[in-house]
Amino acid sequence: MEELQRILPRAPGVGEVFQLLRAEPRTRAQLVAITGQARSTIAARLDSLSEVGLIGQIGERSSAMGRPAASFYFRPDAGAVLAVDIGASHVRVGLTDLSVRILTESQVALNVEEGPEVVLARVIEIGHELLATAGIPASHLKGVGVGVPGPVTHSSGRPSSPPIMPGWDGYDIVGALQTAFGVPIYVDNDANIMAIGEHAMAWKDVPDLVFVKFATGVGMGIILDGQIRRGAQGSSGDIGHIRVPGGPPNPCHCGGTGCLEAVIGVPALLEQLTAAGRTASSGADIVSLVRSGDKAAMQVMRDAGRTAGEVLAGVVSLLNPSVIAVGGILAQAHEQLIAGIRESVYAKSLPLATHDLRINASIAGPRAGIIGASTLVCDQVLSPAAIEAMVDGTDAREGE
Amino acid sequence: MEELQRILPRAPGVGEVFQLLRAEPRTRAQLVAITGQARSTIAARLDSLSEVGLIGQIGERSSAMGRPAASFYFRPDAGAVLAVDIGASHVRVGLTDLSVRILTESQVALNVEEGPEVVLARVIEIGHELLATAGIPASHLKGVGVGVPGPVTHSSGRPSSPPIMPGWDGYDIVGALQTAFGVPIYVDNDANIMAIGEHAMAWKDVPDLVFVKFATGVGMGIILDGQIRRGAQGSSGDIGHIRVPGGPPNPCHCGGTGCLEAVIGVPALLEQLTAAGRTASSGADIVSLVRSGDKAAMQVMRDAGRTAGEVLAGVVSLLNPSVIAVGGILAQAHEQLIAGIRESVYAKSLPLATHDLRINASIAGPRAGIIGASTLVCDQVLSPAAIEAMVDGTDAREGE
Repeated sequence: MEELQRILPRAPGVGEVFQLLRAEPRTRAQLVAITGQARSTIAARLDSLSEVGLIGQIGERSSAMGRPAASFYFRPDAGAVLAVDIGASHVRVGLTDLSVRILTESQVALNVEEGPEVVLARVIEIGHELLATAGIPASHLKGVGVGVPGPVTHSSGRPSSPPIMPGWDGYDIVGALQTAFGVPIYVDNDANIMAIGEHAMAWKDVPDLVFVKFATGVGMGIILDGQIRRGAQGSSGDIGHIRVPGGPPNPCHCGGTGCLEAVIGVPALLEQLTAAGRTASSGADIVSLVRSGDKAAMQVMRDAGRTAGEVLAGVVSLLNPSVIAVGGILAQAHEQLIAGIRESVYAKSLPLATHDLRINASIAGPRAGIIGASTLVCDQVLSPAAIEAMVDGTDAREGE
Repeated sequence: MEELQRILPRAPGVGEVFQLLRAEPRTRAQLVAITGQARSTIAARLDSLSEVGLIGQIGERSSAMGRPAASFYFRPDAGAVLAVDIGASHVRVGLTDLSVRILTESQVALNVEEGPEVVLARVIEIGHELLATAGIPASHLKGVGVGVPGPVTHSSGRPSSPPIMPGWDGYDIVGALQTAFGVPIYVDNDANIMAIGEHAMAWKDVPDLVFVKFATGVGMGIILDGQIRRGAQGSSGDIGHIRVPGGPPNPCHCGGTGCLEAVIGVPALLEQLTAAGRTASSGADIVSLVRSGDKAAMQVMRDAGRTAGEVLAGVVSLLNPSVIAVGGILAQAHEQLIAGIRESVYAKSLPLATHDLRINASIAGPRAGIIGASTLVCDQVLSPAAIEAMVDGTDAREGE
């Protein structure tokens, strides 16, 4: 039957009618014309969607003489989403509506090495604070999206041997947050959610984009033919542990040597700066030094870009993306970083692959993660199937 | 409207009814039950499909007393496809039916450096010979699929600065073959069509697979979430020009140094064997030496595998495939090659990515290319949209 479902189109259900309104407001007559369905069928679907609060109505209901001219529209305030971006040394949490508009957000310094209990307790606390700030009851929450800085088994949402997240291996993040919030929880690698956020915000019409996160770790989210591609277990985009061609054999915490992350992750750059007599102890310090015009820091950043470019040239040969979006804390000093990347990539890739390639700083910037996490949740909880289940649930309760 | 077409399912048309029969034979009653359409609608669609010869009928048409019990089935002999695999030093052409069954095939030694006029003239000649051998009129041909050993701009089917195909840059392969055969022509990179062939033949249920071709050039076809991913211009999978981490700085014909192809392509391996006092002048010679148990050749092949594994470890980190299928002429000596690849990949990739990874010799083997080229054509000429156009074309002619 699954095969048949792939082959056979179905008549548009309430889920599809909702997608039409999610795209733009429409009148009953327009919906009848677009779907080819009976006026009574459309009316019943609109009733169901109104009942669960997902749509509203604007314009006159009807006038004594004329025809009804009401337009129906998607109500993004029908629910809220918590979007959580857990980094190596910070947590950013956003509360959004169902159109991924950020209502309120909060960022705190927090070391992921504190372990899942401490970090997730703080996330839950911040989540409730944000709901209170926005005056939104917890019952209004539709889902929580979470990005973490390590590989995640996609089917379970559990981190899998994440090198910079001691104590998190196999931890049941979904279970912990579900207990706290009672809604669907979606966990993904942070570079994946950043790629989703960058794509949704700035490059919707570009099918092939990669997002590189430069921070304590180095990671990548891959969008091909318009969709995030996670690979067989969900660990795709793990460029931090690709060996740099011609790079130094720095020992890496993964057990290997010469990994990109061991050469240009924040700790490696801090070592280089210390050796050059500079005082810096975080990615933000590096960014400040570069921005202040410190020559050594600028050189370190440019070299990091060149080194990253060695690996990214391989990514360009392999995936032929249209856009490389550069994000993460180090992208806040993106001029040197991107100049270095461009230098290597354009020198080492074949003409066809770089013909229309853009290498740009992330447009979503530090919010790429929470925008992506919210997008991930909204696309799930507003999918045609989810809408149909939601409406059926209401019907079922009515039948009791 | 395009957006609406994405959102809205349509009622099953003649194209979808055909897909149901392409999957397996079904009775009229089954089609009515599955599609939910009127018996008369289904009868009209079956008539259209019979008229263009795409389906046949088995079982009694009706019996005096009982109900009609006829089953309708897809007729793969309703058309034929030419599948062309152009390598650096050979051309293989297959004639298949519409279910990708090879009816007859031919392989000839031919150097791609002879240029497009010479090579395509030979392809056209072989194509007509195969049609004659199989007793199939040229009018029966539905399409031609072609793989070439270099990057192809997907939208035009033209090679784009292909390093090992002098004279082919920008050549209108589609135009040349269309003039000769008068049917749709599909051109793709050879590693892409091999990946499609390997996937269709042996790994249909595996969503994430990469196919590596080891020959004069080294290339890769990437299947993620069940589909070939060609990238923005169609040049994805170009691993031959990724620099080998820790590899020698061999000059490459692309202008770079240390490219995988410059280190383990057939010419590089021949140099190594010559230096070791062996006589070999082709990939087939290398394979013979390895098979004969020649120690130096076995060592060269094992080292080539290790070197390829350095780059493939990066591919595994980046794409997290379930299967790496190893093909191309050198895969005919796959034991040493694959042992070397495994050695590097398992040593250098993170646990999650290699957890369920299989590294295997291609199951489609030397036929991967023509099976893939035929699959590419069949999926296009038998798509729901193509079937609808075909049936409409008949209707239009009838109306004249």
